Order: sequence, then C-alpha cells, then structure tokens
Amino acid sequence: MPDFDVLAVGNAIVDVIAQADEAFLEREGIAKGSMRLIPAEEAQALYAKMGPGREVSGGSAANSCAGIAALGGRAAFIGRVSDDQLGTVFAHDIRAAGVDYRTPPAVGGPPTGQCLILVTADGQRTMNTYLGSCQEVDAEDVDAERVRAARVTYLEGYLWDPPAPIRACTRAMEIARAAGRTVAMTLSDVFCVEGHREDFLRLIAGPVDLVFANENEAKALFRTDDADVAIAELARAARLAVVTRSEKGAVVVQGDERHAVPAQKVARVLDTTGAGDLFAAGFLVGYTRGRPLAECATMGTIAAAEVIEHYGARPESDLKARVAAVLGADALPAGA
Amino acid sequence: MPDFDVLAVGNAIVDVIAQADEAFLEREGIAKGSMRLIPAEEAQALYAKMGPGREVSGGSAANSCAGIAALGGRAAFIGRVSDDQLGTVFAHDIRAAGVDYRTPPAVGGPPTGQCLILVTADGQRTMNTYLGSCQEVDAEDVDAERVRAARVTYLEGYLWDPPAPIRACTRAMEIARAAGRTVAMTLSDVFCVEGHREDFLRLIAGPVDLVFANENEAKALFRTDDADVAIAELARAARLAVVTRSEKGAVVVQGDERHAVPAQKVARVLDTTGAGDLFAAGFLVGYTRGRPLAECATMGTIAAAEVIEHYGARPESDLKARVAAVLGADALPAGA
Repeated sequence: MPDFDVLAVGNAIVDVIAQADEAFLEREGIAKGSMRLIPAEEAQALYAKMGPGREVSGGSAANSCAGIAALGGRAAFIGRVSDDQLGTVFAHDIRAAGVDYRTPPAVGGPPTGQCLILVTADGQRTMNTYLGSCQEVDAEDVDAERVRAARVTYLEGYLWDPPAPIRACTRAMEIARAAGRTVAMTLSDVFCVEGHREDFLRLIAGPVDLVFANENEAKALFRTDDADVAIAELARAARLAVVTRSEKGAVVVQGDERHAVPAQKVARVLDTTGAGDLFAAGFLVGYTRGRPLAECATMGTIAAAEVIEHYGARPESDLKARVAAVLGADALPAGA
Repeated sequence: MPDFDVLAVGNAIVDVIAQADEAFLEREGIAKGSMRLIPAEEAQALYAKMGPGREVSGGSAANSCAGIAALGGRAAFIGRVSDDQLGTVFAHDIRAAGVDYRTPPAVGGPPTGQCLILVTADGQRTMNTYLGSCQEVDAEDVDAERVRAARVTYLEGYLWDPPAPIRACTRAMEIARAAGRTVAMTLSDVFCVEGHREDFLRLIAGPVDLVFANENEAKALFRTDDADVAIAELARAARLAVVTRSEKGAVVVQGDERHAVPAQKVARVLDTTGAGDLFAAGFLVGYTRGRPLAECATMGTIAAAEVIEHYGARPESDLKARVAAVLGADALPAGA
C-alpha cells in the first residue's frame, strides 16, 4: 500500500502577485497571459516597477500538491529553495498545507525562486519567473523509497531546462516505472513545449503514462492551430491525456475513449493563476482512487474553479465541501 | 506650501496572514482580537504551527500612509526594516503605493519585523508581533526638513516601548511643533495604553493636537468600562479626538462639539486588520484639506470599509471612487 497518492517534482517558487493594467504590460513589452523566464537583474528591475504585491507560495506542481492535500489526498513534494526568508515561507506553507516536503534548502547559492505575477482586471495572469535555487534540485534529492511509495509520480514540464532538474526527473521516472507506478507530467506552458518539443513527444511515447496539457500546449506540441486536431494527435501519442480548455472545461482522451466535462460556474474570475495546477490536483485525487475518468476531470474543474476566485494559486476555502456538493462525499478519499 | 499632507513614524512590518480556528487560538493561549509582542523564538514556534500564510506589507502607520496615497494625498513614512527579503518587500510595497520612504535598512541586526496575524472565520484578527528591526528607528532617521514639510506628523502608540523609537517620535514632535504643524497620534492598542498610560495622557495634554483611539483604548486610558465616560474624558483631555467604534461608526470630539458618523455598509467582513489604520488615513486626508470634521470621519469609515472586505491591511480597490461615490469628487485632493 503506497504511502502517497502523488509525489511531485517541481519548482519551489514564491509568487509575488500584483495588479497591473494592460498599459503596463505593453510598456514593458510583456505579452499578456504569457509565462517567461527572466534573469535576476531583470526580475529586480521589473519588481521595482510593479505595484504593491502579496507574497504567496506557488510553483506549479507544489500548488497541485497543496490541492491534493486539501482534497484529503496524500502528497509529497521535491523541489529546492534557498536558505533565505522566502525559502522559509515556501517550506512553511507547503508543510502547513499537509504536504510531505523534505528537500534541504540550498546554502549560499542564488535566492529562492520567485514568480512576479501581473494580474490584469480580466483576471488573466502574466508570469515572469526567476528560477533561482529551483535549478539546483538534482537526482540525489529524489529519494527512491518515497517515489516507490507513491501511486503517481508527477513532473512539471517547467523542469525541462537546466540539466540538474532533468536528472532529478529522469531518476524519478526510472524508479517509478521500475516499481510499477504511474508517471504523470504536465506540459506546463507553450514556451516549454516549444523549447523541448522532441523531448516531450519522446516522454509521452515512453515513460509518461498520463499527460496534462491545456489547448495551447497541445496545439504547440503538434504544431497545429486546430484544437481538435491537437487533441486527436495527443490521443494517438499518449496512453492517457487530459486537455484543459479554460471556460470550455476539459476533455480526457484514452485510446478511442473521449470524456468531455464542462467548466464549473464561477462567481467572479479574480486571478487565473493556478487553475491548471488545481485541475491536475483534482484529477489526480480521483485517478489515484480509481474513479471514472469523467469524474476525475470534474473533480479537476471543481478544484480549478476555487482557485481562480481569489488571488494566489493554492486553495483557500473548503475544497472537500465543494467536491462533495457536486459529486457526493464518496468521491473523496476515505476519512478525508 | 507643505510637500506632504502626512509624515508618519511607525513600525515597518510585513504581515503574515493565515486563517485559524478558535480552537487553535485556545490551544496556543492567545486571546482572540488581541495584539501582543513576542520574541523571535516565540514567533518561530508560532509560525511553525500556523497554516499557510500570505505575506503582505503592514505596520499601522505605514498602512495609513498607503491609504492616504490611495486617496490622492501625499504621505511620507519613517520606519526601519532590515536588509533582508522581507525588508525589500516592505520598501517596495510602500514606495509602489506612492509613499515617500527613505529610511535606510539596518544591516546585520535582527530581521525585518513581522506580524503573525491569525484570522478567524468571523473576520477578527489576532496579532502576534515580532518587532525585529523596527526597534532600531532612532532620532537621526527623522529628517527635520521632511517633518517641517508635512501638515501633519503622525505617530504610532506602538512605538512607545524601546527607547530608540521614542527618541524618534520625540524629535519628530519637537520639529513639527516648532514649525507650527499638527501632531497626531494613535493610541494603537489597549496593551500600549496600559503600558504607557501616563505618557499618553501627558502627550495628549501636551504636544499631540489630534488623537485617534478605538473605544477600548479610550476606556483603558481613563480606566472606565463606560465608553461614553471615556469619550467625555477624552474630549476634556485632548484638543481634538476621534474615537472609532467598529460597526457603530466613529465620533469626533473637539471641546463641546460632537460629530458621530455611522459605519459604512460592508458586503462581508473578511479580515478586520487595518480598519483603524485606514480610518485614520481617510480622516487625515479630509483633515489636511480643511474639510468639516464629520466629513473627515466619513472618509475614514469609507476607507476602513474597503480594507476589511479583503485579507491584508492596505487598500486593493479604488478608494477614490468609493469616496467620490459617497461624498462627491470635491472631497478628494485636487487632481487626485
């Protein structure tokens, strides 16, 4: 019996969230809704121009872990902070959320990774990420016993860039596969797909059992402008894939099977940061409990809906109650 | 013509806000709604037990400055952070809010002050403050030219404890009075009043022209359980006093004059942190423009209402629009 539902490897990031108007994005030459990596100096310069911020723990897979724990699932996270105040904040928050987190902080290197998130009045988020110590997670941080103890090992596409995090992911995949566990990954962002398209295709055809993508990432992966074509291609390429489609909900593809679910109604979209991360959390909680795929996707949409109603990418209200209201208490982990 | 409406001296603090249930407060032996000072080790121990947090800049007078700037007023702040990440956050946020802030960070001393704020489901905040570098603001940080350039010099009662901040306040009051400016202060908290009652009474009878207190602070100052008695005593003791009364609004007393104003309607009280600070901001913006006292108090209630509708003690939505909707655009600073 595994100890964890999901063990995730990801970037350990603290988000700095500020409101911004479209004119600011234009002046800075930043495409709205995009995600980009920026070096330390550029992060400092952008921060100096940004409005007052709120600092909340983030990181895509880390957000998913917080969501899994909020749903009563058991999650573990691997990712590197630095031994600075923001590193302390990240470690505190993920542990306080109920996630098993043991990666020791880096000492004396670059500071803890930060994502400067500009939120426009329409709730769209534009992300500017300084990776800092995130790039220093490596194979030795991947504890074989914990990987074996997890039903699903979940990896961020964001990690595919510097060599050390790729080594960490590769080791995690090898251990998980050797133990007969499921390997899942998210394509993370269009820029990741464009930069590592061949790698991602190889992963999906090989060690990755379950892939998460949004429509744009799927289109980038198969170099098409047609979402239906992209989904059809993904169905052929992947053993199991989930494509999120913002206000159009999500579709799960497994061979010839298709399960489309609508998005949940949302009172007001304040900040879309974390929508994909929380979708993955909800899906994985259902998936690790052997629930029907359509129900897994619905759990994803419920978790995603909560997180876009407030600033910050981790759940703040009672996710279990929301799931129980839609799907009944049986959809949740026993004892949750 | 002064350059600033308000120059404030206060604690430079970053708030760490987390939801907590009443059982947690009971277990920790913390009185709900209270404010207390805690040493570094106790702050660390409490933080370890708290839920996931969000870090936002705070500090009572600093919040007031942010509110003044949001209303189109000109504010300057004096207070000491450390040269660490949270100090950078504080300095960024207050400058990004439009406040003139020049106090150099302390190097090599205790970290930037933090306030661990536990918010219960009823929106009440319970504050646990580790002062850190705040205690190192001193007389030499008070620039005479900037004090002379401000219509009002505003001081936090929270500063009355370690000797250095008291020296800073004393110097600021001396310069302001010599320049014929107004000196204002807030009693800050019942524990401040109880610890420094004689000092506060002396200040109100002497250099302080305008005093802010909530009902409990006024009652503690005059050792009475009767709010009406406390307000009457304050009217005798102070040249001008404003007493805030939570959902009952506020009352301004000046000699025999009384101006009571109701509280604004609030959709939902999420977090009362900063209500008093933003009340003072609204009042001072009206006051420095020579508006009628009742209107100044109403501006206070409008600013306070905004900040209790969200987490964090600084305004997030358009305060000017809210004031204009109630009082008309004339109530705001010209060109604001």
